Amino acid sequence: MPKLSAYSKELDYSFALGAFPSIECVKARPNAIQRLLISTAAKDTPSIVELRDVCEALGTHIEYADNVLRKISGKDNCYAAIVFDKWRSPLTLDAPRVVLHNPSDMGNMGTIMRSMAAFGFRDLAIVEPAVDAFDPKVIRASMGSIFHLNIASFKDYAEYRHINRTDEYPFILGGKSTLRDVPKPTGGNYSLIFGNEGAGLPEWFGGIDTSVRIEQSDLVDSLNLGVAVSIALYEFSGRGGR
Amino acid sequence: MPKLSAYSKELDYSFALGAFPSIECVKARPNAIQRLLISTAAKDTPSIVELRDVCEALGTHIEYADNVLRKISGKDNCYAAIVFDKWRSPLTLDAPRVVLHNPSDMGNMGTIMRSMAAFGFRDLAIVEPAVDAFDPKVIRASMGSIFHLNIASFKDYAEYRHINRTDEYPFILGGKSTLRDVPKPTGGNYSLIFGNEGAGLPEWFGGIDTSVRIEQSDLVDSLNLGVAVSIALYEFSGRGGR
Repeated sequence: MPKLSAYSKELDYSFALGAFPSIECVKARPNAIQRLLISTAAKDTPSIVELRDVCEALGTHIEYADNVLRKISGKDNCYAAIVFDKWRSPLTLDAPRVVLHNPSDMGNMGTIMRSMAAFGFRDLAIVEPAVDAFDPKVIRASMGSIFHLNIASFKDYAEYRHINRTDEYPFILGGKSTLRDVPKPTGGNYSLIFGNEGAGLPEWFGGIDTSVRIEQSDLVDSLNLGVAVSIALYEFSGRGGR
Repeated sequence: MPKLSAYSKELDYSFALGAFPSIECVKARPNAIQRLLISTAAKDTPSIVELRDVCEALGTHIEYADNVLRKISGKDNCYAAIVFDKWRSPLTLDAPRVVLHNPSDMGNMGTIMRSMAAFGFRDLAIVEPAVDAFDPKVIRASMGSIFHLNIASFKDYAEYRHINRTDEYPFILGGKSTLRDVPKPTGGNYSLIFGNEGAGLPEWFGGIDTSVRIEQSDLVDSLNLGVAVSIALYEFSGRGGR
């Protein structure tokens, strides 16, 4: 097997660090797995044994690799990792998409992935520049939810829009309707669009008739991005209501 | 002025690190301010000048303190900080309370504070053991929202319940009603109760008639705690609905 490098965006593989995200990878993306790394210190703990058994059944290459685990995680207490091939999967036609425009925080991106999986959204479009969706920190924050998603990147919003003709719901502080009152789509061919943590979306998105604001007090400038996206997904999935 | 220490839970003061959280402190808790620290490198940047002007008007002690800023922030790029007295304020009678039972993540706690301020919840009860609500990392994640809140700690849930006779809405995976369908209170005397990130709430909370679950797919074990609390606040504030 080739020598592994510490993660960088240019690599065509990444790492699910820890037993929990690794198990999610094995369940959701078995064909993407390159190999399983295990630390000798923890090889008999139940979660690692479970992971090894499943990988053995899949015919995955398994190795004991304390130093490599330390190198790729930067920690002494990472006891297992799956090395997997990154994927670029086309977004699903006629399924709702989440569009993140220039997201800059890895923790937020992982949290958003977790909420997407929780509320039945499987398609994530990322408009560059953006943090790397396959960074191990994102995977960790997603609790492995990333492995359930289709992910596609676009160089700008025009490119996204050209390829994806959908109803657009941009979330912006001055949006024309509240999240509660904006007419929800009946079909699935729509995009929920969110801007950068600091800058939000470019102003012209506010001119779209179905632009949305989440009502809030004036004590804060805005909600946390992961929170705003999650509340939107909750509502658009049909779970909200009084 | 006495010498400042790096932050620890035992201190009766804490730090708002950076211009943005500092401004929130000055606006919401002027009486809690001990002093303003400014770095010489950034003393003429607009946000620092604004902060200094407001503090001068308040008669706050101001000092240029590059080394202290480095020490208390652990970073080279922290250009201002407010040193403030921690407060313990009684929770408001007949106002809705958020109760966090053994929260263990500072980022989540800060995010929750930000959502509380956004959705009009001002009273936070923390059941120990828990992360320190006044840790500068929490204050930073709250974007300064903490300064708008009343915060009280309790050694266990029984102590909280003894002092606060409220309608209880514990959030738990097997809750009896969905968030959408649980009858919402008409008055303000209620508690929204959330468990630890990993362990959730003790099982007996599920026996309460008004226990709540947030409907989600089985692809994930649970939502991120900050997300779950924020969705609950959104609904209970009356903003949700289709």
